[in-house]
Amino acid sequence: PLRSAAVGPLLSGSSGRSRRDAAAHPVPPRSPQALCSQPGRPKDYALPNASWSRDMLDLYDRFLAMTKEGLWKRIPSYNNVLDHIPGKALRGLPSRDTRLFLRSIEAEGVGFEYVMFLNSSEKRVVCLFQPGSYLEGHPGFAHGGSIATIIDSTIGSCAIFVAGRVMTANLSINYMSPVPLGSVVLVDSKVDKVEGRKVFLSCKVQSVDGGTLHAEATALFIQLDATKSQKQQASCQ
Amino acid sequence: PLRSAAVGPLLSGSSGRSRRDAAAHPVPPRSPQALCSQPGRPKDYALPNASWSRDMLDLYDRFLAMTKEGLWKRIPSYNNVLDHIPGKALRGLPSRDTRLFLRSIEAEGVGFEYVMFLNSSEKRVVCLFQPGSYLEGHPGFAHGGSIATIIDSTIGSCAIFVAGRVMTANLSINYMSPVPLGSVVLVDSKVDKVEGRKVFLSCKVQSVDGGTLHAEATALFIQLDATKSQKQQASCQ
Repeated sequence: PLRSAAVGPLLSGSSGRSRRDAAAHPVPPRSPQALCSQPGRPKDYALPNASWSRDMLDLYDRFLAMTKEGLWKRIPSYNNVLDHIPGKALRGLPSRDTRLFLRSIEAEGVGFEYVMFLNSSEKRVVCLFQPGSYLEGHPGFAHGGSIATIIDSTIGSCAIFVAGRVMTANLSINYMSPVPLGSVVLVDSKVDKVEGRKVFLSCKVQSVDGGTLHAEATALFIQLDATKSQKQQASCQ
Repeated sequence: PLRSAAVGPLLSGSSGRSRRDAAAHPVPPRSPQALCSQPGRPKDYALPNASWSRDMLDLYDRFLAMTKEGLWKRIPSYNNVLDHIPGKALRGLPSRDTRLFLRSIEAEGVGFEYVMFLNSSEKRVVCLFQPGSYLEGHPGFAHGGSIATIIDSTIGSCAIFVAGRVMTANLSINYMSPVPLGSVVLVDSKVDKVEGRKVFLSCKVQSVDGGTLHAEATALFIQLDATKSQKQQASCQ
């Protein structure tokens, strides 16, 4: 069940809902290039550390094995947003004491422990997520905002793959079952449809054994620069 | 425009959308009692500190003045979830190194700086929110997940007021305009409708001058224990 939960097809999410799409919210600008592992980068946080549970490590090993078969790629993750932008030094962006929200908690294990894997042929990104004790909402469980955050980030990475620079226009989440702190869940996102600059995606948050559907979500992202993103994708593959 | 943005009626949010309501996600259990300021509590973070900007302080002063007129109440905020539960010591809950997600970043000014005010007659909670530099998504702007988090928390506080213990069942956010790090926004939430155990709410995220609508959201919360919550409300008022 673990393998099927992680690699099986994503059940179709809810749809047919009216959406606002004139306006949008930018997501961290991980270009398709940043979705490919590259040497010489700053510290990559999407790697095992001492806080990872046996479930997290087992899933990680399983996905890592799949990367060797060529269908999946691990997505690196840095604590500074600018480090996700290729050629940032050339852009003359000033150095600032900022942090990518999901990497803002310094200590290992208490914040967002996660790693994402991209399956480009399936237009799908799966995130292995272990919420730490500083993400608490209801006692013992991850805050709904932290679940929204990991969903937005995972779906956003998936949208970036197909459309380059994107902005979140709508995010709708159904919460089914709370996620215990310290447990491991699979955040499984995929592109459902692309219409011009609109990218429609859906996502499920499931327990490792596939037995619990914690949440499901739909999202609309708007593509910012069509020409550029296609070039970036080409250079990444 | 500042006062009207803060105190004026909330424009009706989008509605008529189909929702899942069988399942739900618990929100931090701030009971109606915890919504009232009480002496002898642990450190209250919903108070001005050196990181608060002039805009944030001005708005805070304005709302604080309104609390003296009796219509509004400031909602205290602690970094430990259990401190939001009245009588926690009596419940035998073990002490744990956990944090309320929104108070997980230690340093002043880089995480979620916020304070909420409750207007019980309007069934409305307004949150003054100054996102810090560790909440970054797109360079220079707050992460969509951080916006979802402050919305969930503000709407949740509003739902708690009318229904006691509640769980988030659905949260749908339309992102219109990104929120610059260090700016101040008003998160203005209200109860639209109560049907049995279902509480429907909506929310707007606006700039201080009211000129920019950054996001709007609708949410469905499920009441967990009707009888108890009504008693709690009564004891709070």
